[in-house]
Amino acid sequence: MFEKSTYINRRKALKSKGLKGIGIFLGNNESPMNYRDNTYHYRQDSSFLYFFGLNFPGLVGIVDFDSGDDYIFGDDVDIEDIIWMGTQVPLTENAAKAGVHNTAPFTKVFDIVTKATASGRKVHFLPPYRGENKILLEKLLGTSSLVVSSQASLELIKAVISIREIKEVQEVEEIKRACKTGLQMHVTAMRMAQVGTWEQKIAGTIEGVALAGGGMTSFPIILSQNGETLHNHDHSQTLKEGKLMLCDAGAESLLHYASDFTRTTPVGGEFTQKQREIYEIVLAANNKATLLTKPGVTYLSVHLAAAEVIAAGLKELGLMKGDVKEAVAAGAHALFLPHGLGHMLGLDVHDMEDLGQINVGYDNEVQPVDQFGTAYLRLGKRLKPGFVVTNEPGCYFIPALIDKWYAEGINKDFINFDKVNEYRDFGGIRLEDDILVTDTGSEIIGERVPIDPDEVEEIVQKG
Amino acid sequence: MFEKSTYINRRKALKSKGLKGIGIFLGNNESPMNYRDNTYHYRQDSSFLYFFGLNFPGLVGIVDFDSGDDYIFGDDVDIEDIIWMGTQVPLTENAAKAGVHNTAPFTKVFDIVTKATASGRKVHFLPPYRGENKILLEKLLGTSSLVVSSQASLELIKAVISIREIKEVQEVEEIKRACKTGLQMHVTAMRMAQVGTWEQKIAGTIEGVALAGGGMTSFPIILSQNGETLHNHDHSQTLKEGKLMLCDAGAESLLHYASDFTRTTPVGGEFTQKQREIYEIVLAANNKATLLTKPGVTYLSVHLAAAEVIAAGLKELGLMKGDVKEAVAAGAHALFLPHGLGHMLGLDVHDMEDLGQINVGYDNEVQPVDQFGTAYLRLGKRLKPGFVVTNEPGCYFIPALIDKWYAEGINKDFINFDKVNEYRDFGGIRLEDDILVTDTGSEIIGERVPIDPDEVEEIVQKG
Repeated sequence: MFEKSTYINRRKALKSKGLKGIGIFLGNNESPMNYRDNTYHYRQDSSFLYFFGLNFPGLVGIVDFDSGDDYIFGDDVDIEDIIWMGTQVPLTENAAKAGVHNTAPFTKVFDIVTKATASGRKVHFLPPYRGENKILLEKLLGTSSLVVSSQASLELIKAVISIREIKEVQEVEEIKRACKTGLQMHVTAMRMAQVGTWEQKIAGTIEGVALAGGGMTSFPIILSQNGETLHNHDHSQTLKEGKLMLCDAGAESLLHYASDFTRTTPVGGEFTQKQREIYEIVLAANNKATLLTKPGVTYLSVHLAAAEVIAAGLKELGLMKGDVKEAVAAGAHALFLPHGLGHMLGLDVHDMEDLGQINVGYDNEVQPVDQFGTAYLRLGKRLKPGFVVTNEPGCYFIPALIDKWYAEGINKDFINFDKVNEYRDFGGIRLEDDILVTDTGSEIIGERVPIDPDEVEEIVQKG
Repeated sequence: MFEKSTYINRRKALKSKGLKGIGIFLGNNESPMNYRDNTYHYRQDSSFLYFFGLNFPGLVGIVDFDSGDDYIFGDDVDIEDIIWMGTQVPLTENAAKAGVHNTAPFTKVFDIVTKATASGRKVHFLPPYRGENKILLEKLLGTSSLVVSSQASLELIKAVISIREIKEVQEVEEIKRACKTGLQMHVTAMRMAQVGTWEQKIAGTIEGVALAGGGMTSFPIILSQNGETLHNHDHSQTLKEGKLMLCDAGAESLLHYASDFTRTTPVGGEFTQKQREIYEIVLAANNKATLLTKPGVTYLSVHLAAAEVIAAGLKELGLMKGDVKEAVAAGAHALFLPHGLGHMLGLDVHDMEDLGQINVGYDNEVQPVDQFGTAYLRLGKRLKPGFVVTNEPGCYFIPALIDKWYAEGINKDFINFDKVNEYRDFGGIRLEDDILVTDTGSEIIGERVPIDPDEVEEIVQKG
């Protein structure tokens, strides 16, 4: 945990947002794999962690916006259980570490919520994403678990986002720790990128690197020589000569802050000329995006600038044609870059995605763009100092998409389909860094994961 | 998957159990970590896997016990999604692999269940253990997610257990594969058991070994120099000279069969005399239990025989006194061995625990024993060829338990508390193998994880 003043100050900031009534923060419980007591690695809810700090199951936190009081509800371990579990810290003592002095057994949370609703006070809660918490809200509020998500408080959502989106210095330090483990994961993967190696062996080994560092992976690892399949969690192939291994992976720090990197490595350690040309274009787009990222600019504009670098590079190779700006305005680059440049990063790898991507990434000024490709940009709004974002341009050759565009004549004025077809088995390249928006610009967090193509080749070749 | 005849035969066996009405088998969905789309490793429900074989989310299987028909409900991937996910096999084709020819979109499951209940047919289902499936049953049956677990069908539970408890030869082969990865995990842990190493580094690394083998761990790893704390998932300490590292860990095979081993290793590679003496006693209990395990005997009797070996050994060391058989009958050994000898192993590490331990481990003939220690025995009933069970005796010195028994004079005629107090900081030893009940006796599955104390010392010393 951070110092208790951290949690007191965060809740103070939340109380200053003008909400009335009470705010419920549900902690996460254990999550069963194949029976109730066989559980996954415990993961606390991020907003609970942010405002209440305690990293174990069975808790609900409540903020009373009218009185200013904070509460934590949970049960102490039975005396008998100490024989099995060893000495346990009582809840009062744990809650005090987060600066909370009102604690009570778990069932008492029903009293406070019932009392609040009975007296007509507003009860705010965040959208639940786990079944057990939907059922708990059903019990607490007398609503149905089937519709409770739609009853979440937009007012509380917006207040939480406005605080969590600006990272404290100590949070950036935690992200830096997650990045350090992430770097080890990626270098390990590069070393293992040899012909004949099973993808799962690499993915499993680098997940072990994350776990040995003390955290989990921050999201399910993508590791595939079919990097063009964007939603690909299959690791069943063995690496083949001449292919590219795309690895998108990150770790959590001990305090559950995330890193998120992507690197693309030539299997066996040597880029072909075609691969190196595309790699250099994606790298140029990545570097350009870091340069442009600074307070006051919209991330939508940075996304489009990166898209222009990709389009210009592909035009030079003969894959695209026509005016680059016009091509990007028409969305022609999205044949090759059909996703967004990046997203916020923090306690969640897609930070606060549970609160709604539109609430996190957009606002009244910058609205989502309804065009294939840019529509998938998770963060469009104007950047502020303290934002931590990912910068992850890519270039992919997706046969199903190429065929669709060709058949339907989509953006045919900007695409040389004949040339594009020469790249059908290319795969895909993505290069992703985690960057901090500073007062004057932006900086890569921690030591950069090797990205220079010569250096990457050397790491693979050394093995 | 196994051959489709496997699944057809298993469902045929189920249909021969005399049930009427329909049986619902809910598959598992993705399980969210910190937001809906950030999920843990996917784990299918074991009974669904057993009878329907398909290892992906979004499915419900139904067996009509009256007509003999089987159904799988689920949705095919959208054409648009193929761009992101690559080519997908249609549900009809997947279902055919399990010998099921009736498939329909997911929502159609509501029709078949509604029709069955409306016509007064019995609707059987197994106890749900995940919140999302409780909510689904609420929707399907018009009951409440809060009480649905108590409405599960004991008839279906008993029928499923009677089939799943006898392992097919191909299932034993899968368990053997899980054991092979488990062996690698334990040898890796032994090599890392050096003074000053962080427990989490070892636990994380061996979880990586499981993942690199293609499966998950079969349960959360226990790895601690405080092995006496039985429910201990804390890995925060660094290993100290003179301590024992207890590691209880196993892997899943590609088809999700489990292994489950415990070994206890001297940190730095040399047992003290005290440690070696206790180790030899636990090892003798383990070997005795394997010898006694055969068809026709109850596992309760094997448990008690292992307890006698422990008690006799401790008497020889002066820790216990009096008649060994009387001591075990009185439950005095449970100060040192407060848990059961073992449990069934299969698709789940505690096989079928979701169906109720009392249903799995006991029957009309052998009922649970209401005595501290033996009360925690998960499997008591008479053994049959094809059972796979764990054999995991242990010996622990739990200060809180010692103090309680001393204060309350529990079993004081059989315990030398003065002598016991000399072992207060000993920790604990457990030695666990996975064994198959054969037609004539039992055998350890696969290559035995190193257990000879000299061999274990050598592995640590080689590092």
